[in-house]
This record gives sequence, C-alpha cells and structure tokens, in this order.
Amino acid sequence: MGRIPRIVILGAGYGGIVTAIRLQKELNYNEADVTLVNKHDYHYITTHLHMPAAGTDKPENARVDITKLIDEYKIDFVKSTVTQIKLDDQKIILEDSAISYDYLVIGLGGEPETFGIPGLQEYAMNIRSINSVRLIREHIEYQFAKYKREPHRLDYLTFVVGGAGFTGIEFIGELADRIPRLCAEFDVDPSLVRIYNIEAAPTVLPGFDSELVEYAMKVLEDKGVTFKIATAIQECTPQGVILATGEEIRSSTVIWTGGIRGNRMLAEAGLETMRGRVVVDPYLRTKEYENVYVIGDCSIVMNPEGRPYPPTAQIATQQGQTCSYNLVASIRNAPLKEFKFQNKGVVASLGKGEAIGVVGKYKMKGATAAFMKKLVDMRYLFIIGGIPLVLRKGRL
Amino acid sequence: MGRIPRIVILGAGYGGIVTAIRLQKELNYNEADVTLVNKHDYHYITTHLHMPAAGTDKPENARVDITKLIDEYKIDFVKSTVTQIKLDDQKIILEDSAISYDYLVIGLGGEPETFGIPGLQEYAMNIRSINSVRLIREHIEYQFAKYKREPHRLDYLTFVVGGAGFTGIEFIGELADRIPRLCAEFDVDPSLVRIYNIEAAPTVLPGFDSELVEYAMKVLEDKGVTFKIATAIQECTPQGVILATGEEIRSSTVIWTGGIRGNRMLAEAGLETMRGRVVVDPYLRTKEYENVYVIGDCSIVMNPEGRPYPPTAQIATQQGQTCSYNLVASIRNAPLKEFKFQNKGVVASLGKGEAIGVVGKYKMKGATAAFMKKLVDMRYLFIIGGIPLVLRKGRL
Repeated sequence: MGRIPRIVILGAGYGGIVTAIRLQKELNYNEADVTLVNKHDYHYITTHLHMPAAGTDKPENARVDITKLIDEYKIDFVKSTVTQIKLDDQKIILEDSAISYDYLVIGLGGEPETFGIPGLQEYAMNIRSINSVRLIREHIEYQFAKYKREPHRLDYLTFVVGGAGFTGIEFIGELADRIPRLCAEFDVDPSLVRIYNIEAAPTVLPGFDSELVEYAMKVLEDKGVTFKIATAIQECTPQGVILATGEEIRSSTVIWTGGIRGNRMLAEAGLETMRGRVVVDPYLRTKEYENVYVIGDCSIVMNPEGRPYPPTAQIATQQGQTCSYNLVASIRNAPLKEFKFQNKGVVASLGKGEAIGVVGKYKMKGATAAFMKKLVDMRYLFIIGGIPLVLRKGRL
Repeated sequence: MGRIPRIVILGAGYGGIVTAIRLQKELNYNEADVTLVNKHDYHYITTHLHMPAAGTDKPENARVDITKLIDEYKIDFVKSTVTQIKLDDQKIILEDSAISYDYLVIGLGGEPETFGIPGLQEYAMNIRSINSVRLIREHIEYQFAKYKREPHRLDYLTFVVGGAGFTGIEFIGELADRIPRLCAEFDVDPSLVRIYNIEAAPTVLPGFDSELVEYAMKVLEDKGVTFKIATAIQECTPQGVILATGEEIRSSTVIWTGGIRGNRMLAEAGLETMRGRVVVDPYLRTKEYENVYVIGDCSIVMNPEGRPYPPTAQIATQQGQTCSYNLVASIRNAPLKEFKFQNKGVVASLGKGEAIGVVGKYKMKGATAAFMKKLVDMRYLFIIGGIPLVLRKGRL
C-alpha cells in the first residue's frame, strides 16, 4: 500500500473552509492527510464585513475560530502566510516553513483592483479583512473627534465610497445608519455630514433588477446619501478624490470597493491569469495541473453565455462543495463531477430593516428582503458550523 | 429704586458652576440678574476626564447638562464663547453678541502650559475638555487599528505621557488598565505595548507624601509603565519625543499633562497676570477692579507661606462658595468674607481599585484610597446637583 495522499488547502475563506469541512466529513480514516493553511486563526464572514466597517456591529461577530469549525484530529491547521506556490515541486513556501502536497486547493481570496487609478492604493481604505474593517471603523470615529477640534474641516465629515457593487452599497447602508449615532455621540450637527457614492458604471448594483435598484437608491438617498453614477474617480489624493468631471470632493475618508482581482501569487506561480484569476476547467482544476484546484475569488467560472460569474460568497461556497467531492473522487479513482453554479438568489442589505433581493422568480424589498438576507446568512452559518454556529452568530 | 444689578459669570467649570448654583439659592427675587456664559451647554467634571481619555469610561459620564444644574427661571444661561473682556466698559464680547455687567466672575479655566518646549503645541494632545478626551480615546484606538496594517510600526503601540502631576498619573493608571482590553480587541501582543511617563521634576506627584509616591510608582510599574523622572522633554516631533538626555522615543501618541496656565484673555483685558493668572485680593477680586472676581485656574491664591496653591477642583469649588457669598454681600452692602482654603485631602487614582491619598493626618493607599476617591467625587456631585446627581453619575 502506498503513502497516504496529502491535500493542502490554502486559505480559509468561503471556498477553503467549506472544502475542509466537507473533506473532514467524507474522508475515511487514513484515506488522506488534509492540511488547511490560513493567515489568521479565524475564518471571517466577508459578507458581514460592511457592518463592523461602519461600526454597526462588532468585528467579533463577523469571525469564527477555525478550530471551532474543523476537527483538529482530522485536519491539520497551520496558521501562516503563504509566500510562494511552487507547482512543479508540489510545494508551498510559508513564512517560516514549507509543505508538500499531492493535491492543492487554492482559495486565497482576492485583492482590491484599483484599475490603475492614481492614489487609490495609497490613500483609500478597503473592506477586505477583520483588520481592515477595524481600521475603517476607528478611522471614521477619529474623524468625528478631529472635527470637534477643527470645526472648519468639513472634509472630516465627508465620506466617499468608490464603487456601487454589493460591498459598496451594503457598506453605505450601514454607514448611513451609523452617522446619526456618531453625531449624537460627538455632538456634531448631522446636516454637516456628507456621504458620496461614486460609480463609474451607468448604474448602481450592475446586473440587478432595475426596479429594485431604483428602490435601493431611494432608500439610501432618504438616509442622506448622494450618488454620483456614471462618474469615474480620476485620482485619489490625501485631500479626497478628483472626479473625471473635474469636480473635487474634499474628504479625509475614501473607501474603495470598486473591484476585486485575484491573488498575485497565482501568476507568480506560472498559471495563466486574467486580472489575477484563473479560468478553471469544468472540475475546478487548472488547465496546467490536474492536481491543483482553484476556487473562490481567484477562479473564473464562465456562465452559459460565456461571461464570468461575478465572484461572490455563494459561488465560492458551492465551489468548495464540488471541490471536496472531486478530491475524494480522485483519491478513490471515481469519476469527477462538473461544477454547475446554482443561483439561490441575491439579497443586498441597505442598513437596518431594509434590503432588496431576487430569489428565483421573486423580487423583494424592504422588511421582507431584510428578513431573507438574514435567512441567507444563517444558511451559510449552518453549512459551515451547523446549529451551534447559527445559535452563536445568527441574528434574526 | 435703582436698576437690578447684573452679575455675569464666565465659565461653568468648578468655580463658575458652584458660584451660579449658590447665587441661585441665596438671592431673593429681583435682587440681581444672573447670567452664566459657557462655551458648551454642559459642565464637565475635569477630575474625571482621565477616564474617558483612556477609554475606561464614557465621556457622557464626565458631563452634566447645565440646565439640569441651574434653574433657568432664576439664571439666564448663554451658550457662547467669550472673545473679549472689556473691563473699563463693563462689557463682555461674545462670538455673536455682547453683554454688560455690574459684577463679573471670571472662571474661564486654564490652558495647557508648554513652557516653550518646541512641538508640544503642534504634536501633543491635552486632557482638557470632553472634545479633547474623545480625540485622545479615538486616537489611541486608531493606533491599534493602524498597527495591524503596518506591524513594523511599533511607534503606534508606544504611548508617551508628559508630566507626572495629578492628571498625568491618573491618566496613566487608566491607560494601563485599558491596554490589555485593547490588545484583546485588536489581536495585539501586549508585550509590544510601551507606556512612558516623563517628568522633568525630581519626583512624580511633587508635594505628595514620598511613601505614597513610591507605592504609586510600584503599582503603575507593575501595570507596565516605564518612568523617566528628572528627565525633561526637549522637543516633541511628529515621530515622538526627544529627551534632554538625547534619547528619542518614537511614539505616535504624546499626551501632555505637564502644566496649566491661565486664560490668555485676562492679560488681554489689561489685568496683571503671572502665566495667565491673576493674584486676587483676600475676597477673590482683582486689584484693579472691585467688581471683578477671578476664580479657578485663572486665579492665584497664596498659601500662608506665600506660595501659590496648586490649581485644583477643590480650591475652585471653595472659591465658588466664597465668591457667591461676597457677591450677595456686596449687593446687600454687607461685609465681605475672606477666602481661606481648607484642604480636605487629596486622593489620586491609579486605575481600577488602586489609589493613594492624604486626608487630614491619614495616609491611605490601595482599595481604601480608591474608595475615598469615589467619596470625594460623590461629595462634589452632591454639592452641585444634590442627591439626584449623585444617583445619576455617582459610582461606588
């Protein structure tokens, strides 16, 4: 009998953690060694990060300890940062060690895509991790405190969100909810606060039903948000942003949510990438290596019309399920399964009690959609952690 | 019968608010018009500010709405900022109006004294108002968030407090208590955090019993504080502080508590001042004007040895009581009373459950002193707001 095959999973985001949890369930004793590598010892629920970023929820509620999700007798967890992927050597270089694999799952997540807009990298903040949302929350509160010392600096009370996709819109909904509370806490006149949402595309939430988009904009405008749609950011500066129209918005807080690209390590590893992402085969493997799977924000799956599905938590979770199935099948010499994305619906929150959504043929808005959003969140908690996690982190 | 005399009180700090409350109690109907002018619509309990500055208590707990302390049928309250005092014209120029007086009480409080140390004005923060302590609290939290983005920047985790008087020591006690909680919240290794207390004088808490001072230093050192005593700050820079020894401490947070001077408007008004303060006569009046009283941090009262009493909440409160007595006596053509400071004891808090104090001939430390500190606080709440305020703001 040969050596037990070794599966290494890089990243404990949606794709990676679901793969790990499913493998743990499916694999029999001594069928494979599974190692999960992640930068932090917690998984975070990316779709919740807009709340702690705005300060409407605690960062703790958006994360789960990895050791509470996996059984360490069955899966080895390594807390480390990947520095290099050596595909020909079947080896992963970590900060302080190296590990070999027979099968590799790359679920390293994405990085902000700034489309070469000058200054975004240096002066804008991103909603992408627990640490980054704590930075945003503290930054926002600090601006209110600084404004009280320098009451002529209205740029301290001006908030610019670049990008009107899911993350941008959900963050704005939370921020608009938080502003009145911050004004009360710091004795600031709420009429002085400005929230701008700037989007280069001709609409917010591109691809969403237009009636619902209109509803979302109305809800957010009523909360004090100013939209500048079909307007590109030309440059981000230490003083704010300059728009393609030439208009300057002075703001000490610019949050960039305008795009996601893959992880730069994939191209460095020699894989063919588009904006850091790999077009995977029907089984979620790379073209170059049969034993290397790519899932989540680092992967591209084409829809039946030949256009890439947008990177979402939903698709990453489903990829994790197919990926773990195919890994088990490979080990057992069974046939692999093709990945088929099943759209279970999309719900975007607009702050407390407000949301819009499309589930199957149903369009919904307001309290119904907000309720559906919570069900979607709890469904995911159930997938990764079962009833105990739903009870611990779920909110109805 | 002549016009009703008009009394104007500038500032609702310890001295001003006690003067106003006593006048409201003593004066009969139509005996005088009393106007209280204050920048904010709240009085703040300066001796509590070190707690919200460190983030161990809410700023709200250190302030009381002025309209809850005075009866607006008896005293006019004007929320405005004094811009000029015209003593010869018996007129006060406010931001947006002007008021005349027959009797004036100046209780405008002090300003930080930087002794000409370069950079302190620009780069250090001060514990002096609700707004300033919110700034400090938010600044500190923000440094932890920024450290997580740039983990090589240990200056984000280094805190320098200049001055080891009451405010400095009490703030350090609270900060040392807060650090472990901030470390837990932001996932920061507590061993990386540094707190320095730098004092030019040869001892911390100058004038305090030396055995208690030793105890205080021990308590704070055990909480991780590093003292640099008999060491002057030579310069404050955007990178931290440079000491007279040539040593540089890199720190993104410098809090200056090293000194208080009077308000610059007193000298501008033509009064003779020493570091912005006026030496008052035995009745608390200026030498130049019999109808102008100066109390609190803007005034100097000499002790029997001919040295000025340090400016404290205790002396300001007692001055408010004598000042209101003398105002009523003047109006009634009764003899004035000389001000005599009665030392009721001094207690310095060292964080939760720890303090040192001298009350009469008793020296105390630890839990006893901490309990006494709370009694002192509650006694003041009782003076200004009676039982209801003690119940609302008091903590045992």
